[in-house]
Amino acid sequence: MSFKYLTNIDLDTAREDYLAVLIEKGLVSGKETIAVTEAAGRVTKEAVYAKICAPHYNASAMDGIAVSARDTFGASETTPILLEPGQYKYIDTGDPLPEEFDAVVMIEDVISTEDYETKELETEEHITGGYITEKQAMDDRLAHDKPVKSATIKLYDSAAPWQHIRQIGEDICAGEMLLPSFSKVTPAAMGAMIASGVTELTVIKRPVVGFIPTGDEIIPPTANPKEGEILEFNSVIYTAMLKEWGAEAIKFPIVKDDAKLIKAAVETALSECDIVLIGAGSSAGREDYTASVISQVGTILYHGIAIKPGKPAILGYYDKNTTREKNNNSKEQNKDTHRSVVPLIGVPGYPVSGIIVLEQLLRPMLDYLCGANNQPYTYVEATLSKSVASTLKYREFVRVRLGYVKDKLIAAPLGRGSGVVTSFMRADGILEIPQEAEGYESGKKVNIRLMRNKEELHQSIVVIGSHDPLIDELSDLLRIKHGNISLGSAHVGSMSGILAVKKGEAHLAGTHLLDEETGEYNSSFIRRMIPDGGVKLIKCVKRKQGLMLPKGNPKGIKNIADLVKDGIRYVNRQKGSGTRILIDYLCKKDNIDTSNIYGYDREEFTHTSVAALIAAGSADVGLGIYSAAKIYDLEFIHICDEDYDFLIPDHAWEMPVVQELLALLESADFAKRLDALGGYILNDPGLLRVPCAPD
Amino acid sequence: MSFKYLTNIDLDTAREDYLAVLIEKGLVSGKETIAVTEAAGRVTKEAVYAKICAPHYNASAMDGIAVSARDTFGASETTPILLEPGQYKYIDTGDPLPEEFDAVVMIEDVISTEDYETKELETEEHITGGYITEKQAMDDRLAHDKPVKSATIKLYDSAAPWQHIRQIGEDICAGEMLLPSFSKVTPAAMGAMIASGVTELTVIKRPVVGFIPTGDEIIPPTANPKEGEILEFNSVIYTAMLKEWGAEAIKFPIVKDDAKLIKAAVETALSECDIVLIGAGSSAGREDYTASVISQVGTILYHGIAIKPGKPAILGYYDKNTTREKNNNSKEQNKDTHRSVVPLIGVPGYPVSGIIVLEQLLRPMLDYLCGANNQPYTYVEATLSKSVASTLKYREFVRVRLGYVKDKLIAAPLGRGSGVVTSFMRADGILEIPQEAEGYESGKKVNIRLMRNKEELHQSIVVIGSHDPLIDELSDLLRIKHGNISLGSAHVGSMSGILAVKKGEAHLAGTHLLDEETGEYNSSFIRRMIPDGGVKLIKCVKRKQGLMLPKGNPKGIKNIADLVKDGIRYVNRQKGSGTRILIDYLCKKDNIDTSNIYGYDREEFTHTSVAALIAAGSADVGLGIYSAAKIYDLEFIHICDEDYDFLIPDHAWEMPVVQELLALLESADFAKRLDALGGYILNDPGLLRVPCAPD
Repeated sequence: MSFKYLTNIDLDTAREDYLAVLIEKGLVSGKETIAVTEAAGRVTKEAVYAKICAPHYNASAMDGIAVSARDTFGASETTPILLEPGQYKYIDTGDPLPEEFDAVVMIEDVISTEDYETKELETEEHITGGYITEKQAMDDRLAHDKPVKSATIKLYDSAAPWQHIRQIGEDICAGEMLLPSFSKVTPAAMGAMIASGVTELTVIKRPVVGFIPTGDEIIPPTANPKEGEILEFNSVIYTAMLKEWGAEAIKFPIVKDDAKLIKAAVETALSECDIVLIGAGSSAGREDYTASVISQVGTILYHGIAIKPGKPAILGYYDKNTTREKNNNSKEQNKDTHRSVVPLIGVPGYPVSGIIVLEQLLRPMLDYLCGANNQPYTYVEATLSKSVASTLKYREFVRVRLGYVKDKLIAAPLGRGSGVVTSFMRADGILEIPQEAEGYESGKKVNIRLMRNKEELHQSIVVIGSHDPLIDELSDLLRIKHGNISLGSAHVGSMSGILAVKKGEAHLAGTHLLDEETGEYNSSFIRRMIPDGGVKLIKCVKRKQGLMLPKGNPKGIKNIADLVKDGIRYVNRQKGSGTRILIDYLCKKDNIDTSNIYGYDREEFTHTSVAALIAAGSADVGLGIYSAAKIYDLEFIHICDEDYDFLIPDHAWEMPVVQELLALLESADFAKRLDALGGYILNDPGLLRVPCAPD
Repeated sequence: MSFKYLTNIDLDTAREDYLAVLIEKGLVSGKETIAVTEAAGRVTKEAVYAKICAPHYNASAMDGIAVSARDTFGASETTPILLEPGQYKYIDTGDPLPEEFDAVVMIEDVISTEDYETKELETEEHITGGYITEKQAMDDRLAHDKPVKSATIKLYDSAAPWQHIRQIGEDICAGEMLLPSFSKVTPAAMGAMIASGVTELTVIKRPVVGFIPTGDEIIPPTANPKEGEILEFNSVIYTAMLKEWGAEAIKFPIVKDDAKLIKAAVETALSECDIVLIGAGSSAGREDYTASVISQVGTILYHGIAIKPGKPAILGYYDKNTTREKNNNSKEQNKDTHRSVVPLIGVPGYPVSGIIVLEQLLRPMLDYLCGANNQPYTYVEATLSKSVASTLKYREFVRVRLGYVKDKLIAAPLGRGSGVVTSFMRADGILEIPQEAEGYESGKKVNIRLMRNKEELHQSIVVIGSHDPLIDELSDLLRIKHGNISLGSAHVGSMSGILAVKKGEAHLAGTHLLDEETGEYNSSFIRRMIPDGGVKLIKCVKRKQGLMLPKGNPKGIKNIADLVKDGIRYVNRQKGSGTRILIDYLCKKDNIDTSNIYGYDREEFTHTSVAALIAAGSADVGLGIYSAAKIYDLEFIHICDEDYDFLIPDHAWEMPVVQELLALLESADFAKRLDALGGYILNDPGLLRVPCAPD
């Protein structure tokens, strides 16, 4: 509610200005010296130079004899040369080359002029399990046996100077620069450092980012919150994001809505952190608290960014030099010398807003501080499956699901509420709608920032249509059987599912549409809606539909006619869903005027959300499937059994991933899952329902 | 040397067979239950279901009043309705909706019919630092002040049922599947789990991979190894790689070359690990030890893979079921039930071989065990800058540097020795040459597997030519000033550098070529070698060339003529380098027959490697620059000052990154670095050397 007084600064301007001001005020990364063995993935703050050469001595690269190349000159098959004791020395791989020699001859090429005096082989080493062959035994002899007495040896080939020797500095020379500043330390670089005598190095200190959650109503995570208690999960999300981005994260305790307490918490955080985030909570006036506290301990640069979600973000900073006087009574803050300025960011309370604010405003700052540690984003072009409206006031960030349908990448926008954290969990990408656009039309080609590997999208089955928990179970079974296949489902109802298939936006739609006139399920709708065919209707299950009621049926509801009774609060499904069509039909059949049913316009998108509202006492009755009622332990008045089928376009039918899914329908695992869900009868799963094709 | 008895199985066959056999023997990942807060980046082993709804109660989404929507019916601007105490209740964002109400009206739309009784504002909260405006004070009043007495209120608009309410299950319904099996846990998923009452989940246990380094001569990392001691750094590399790939790594102590000891170490590792790697060391016969031990405790599937580097790898396994009898005397191994089979891999001792073996054979196994946790590789097309030979016997993995020159991505092969760990450190990508190819010609378009972000390659300056440590210092200064620019340099000598520029394969070449006839540096060569022009020769420094000698000059060398003396061991630079041309010229001038100089054909590629050999006593004298002598604290007999210039093609001259580099030449920082290196005089750095262009 206080948003209307905020500035509405353009995101790019805010981001650039903010970073520029912070840098001008002295924002720099800290440094620390750590062991090479602990340095994986860190970024050098200073160049690293080799301390010793690698190899650090001239080492034999073979088992053989060290010789002076000059002594072997002229040797050939026909004119072998002889080397007397003293002119050569036996040497193993890795042994130092004696100073008087400058070449190594492989043991295979050394012909002794005396008999071998074979050392006793230690028998235990040669218990072979049948593995050691005669040839290997020969190898062993070569490796273990050497003439025990000095002897004259014969060579049939001359040696080139420095052959079979790993010379000093062959790989690395002492004093050579191994890594310049701001280099990411790879495993191979760690090896090179150790090899050249470097045991520690100076790296960029991971920026320490503190998050202070605030709010009277928020509590630490628990499985049993009371009404009015909100679980504090933003810190879990942000902490994980910060670590991914190379920062160290500190989660401070929850602070109540009290300016004095928040100020104290910020001051504590300032003494420990390089960057401080204040979680604003969702209460009205809260942003004003945060803003007021930031302006007390430091300076606010921007309050209000032209982005949605995320608009009430606050960008401020604590400046050690200029704010010292302001805080002359407070304890000496931020003793770390590199912390002359500490960014103070007010993060909106809703998680989706917070995620966008951190991504857009904090990540670039961390990239700067960490020396470009983060992967740049990757983008793909996709076709929007439905129109997305947007205002000219904000740049919008819309979460989308992605899937290749008919070789076209389809982007389906997900829920846009800023409280809907699952939209981020289920998203495959982010669509940015610029401030100057009033949204995008369905069918438009848009650029999507990817949140997963592009390769995975090709293994994704797009399911749009009627909701049933069995789809999630299929998704799980698919992943158990074929780890790389994923299934993304949108619950939009049977009608919209059929339309999505028609428009080439889905591989599969769950559907259960009753034809009032014929009593037939699905086929007649599909004949009517997709007259040109090109689709297959596949049988899946029969499932029980009925009235879901609180345990014990306290209001004594017996049938559809009872829904109009006084004090009965109904909860409905959205228009176009098979269940809505069913209740409309049932009411019509019984001559019930649905405008007399209280709550008939209260619409939910899934069976489970209807059941959840009834279970919580927020509604008294709703129509839904047995398996949803079972989850919430509700009473269930059985009304009818209906056919829940899968509609599959021909182009998807041929896809191996879709065939994998269909194969699962007949599996024992699927039958077991249905049994656990309850209320289903397998109905020739996977078989073509006839008639369905036109004519 | 024992390689000749190994099999030479195709890599793909080996990898597929090996994994298939292991899976058939029961290779599966373990599982463990962990707290959601610790689950970032882990992979679910079982589906996760919501325990409670989110929100778990009907919560107000605004500050305002809760009402019954029916009571507001018909309200409008002209016909406001009045609500009496009891018909509404003040409510804050996040507060539970009282059961008797079904809508929320925003506080801004609530008109009280009585005066506000303003609460005293706590002044301390409102010390504003000039920030709180009048409007915000109004906001605060709205947030803090409520009519303290019950009062009749007025509404000018009707409320829709369920408006401004976050209903139970709006985001997540209890019982809903949040994540199917084998899903990577993202930060948002962690938030969704916490929000829906899930505090722990079952994830795939990170596979525990043990590495046993073996070898008589290897010692743990130290800054001061003795001659004959090899620093054990493979475990540091492998451990870091394994962790990157999602495994847990255990580094076991170094084991001496002794079959009994190695067998004991393997048995210990088997009891703690899911996968055991045995570092084979580089001594001859070592692979036979490892093979013999593996065949004693388990089974060998393949010994010898048709890859280079990496050919002597051993793929084996310990099978709990079939190998029990074999080991009936040994302690009960591998009690973890999921470890019915433990892969045993013999990893070649050279680090480059080991890295390839782990990448090609272990990573796919970890992907399988971790549920496709790893990013797939990405590839780019590049043009090979020089021919690479390969045998029909092996598939070769060649490390390359990459850079965009004239919009063409150029791949320059790096050192191919398997001991050269820096080749992996400096590589931008890997070129695979299939077994059936005898190598690739220079100029061929090849597919390169990327080891860094593609975006970074556009910010990379390709420097090919004469070696000077000042190039590394420039590289460091560049990164300090512009974190994202990198500089990749290849030390191939002045001549090859000029050719690289001519062929469009480099942005810059360091060069110092003396024209014997004119005494002029560089320009005459460039006029001759690049007669068509299109290049600029930029002045950089004058540097001191001279004879480098051990401290105290024990052999009393005074000048070039002394090089032919008996007992003097010279070390030279490669043909085509400016320093080689200089020594050839100096000898010719003094009528010295270079075939009388011992070691004249011992060629090194950098000044520092020449200096390193002299410092180590492996040679007595070499020609090189003062700064290299200074690093090793050598004596230096000054011979001449030479012009070290930069040759830059016109297309590179226009690149901002190249201009950034040239700007650095005039910087105080660069002057300071040169001063520290020693032996340089800045020579109008950055100025065009004239004449250089033809005609």
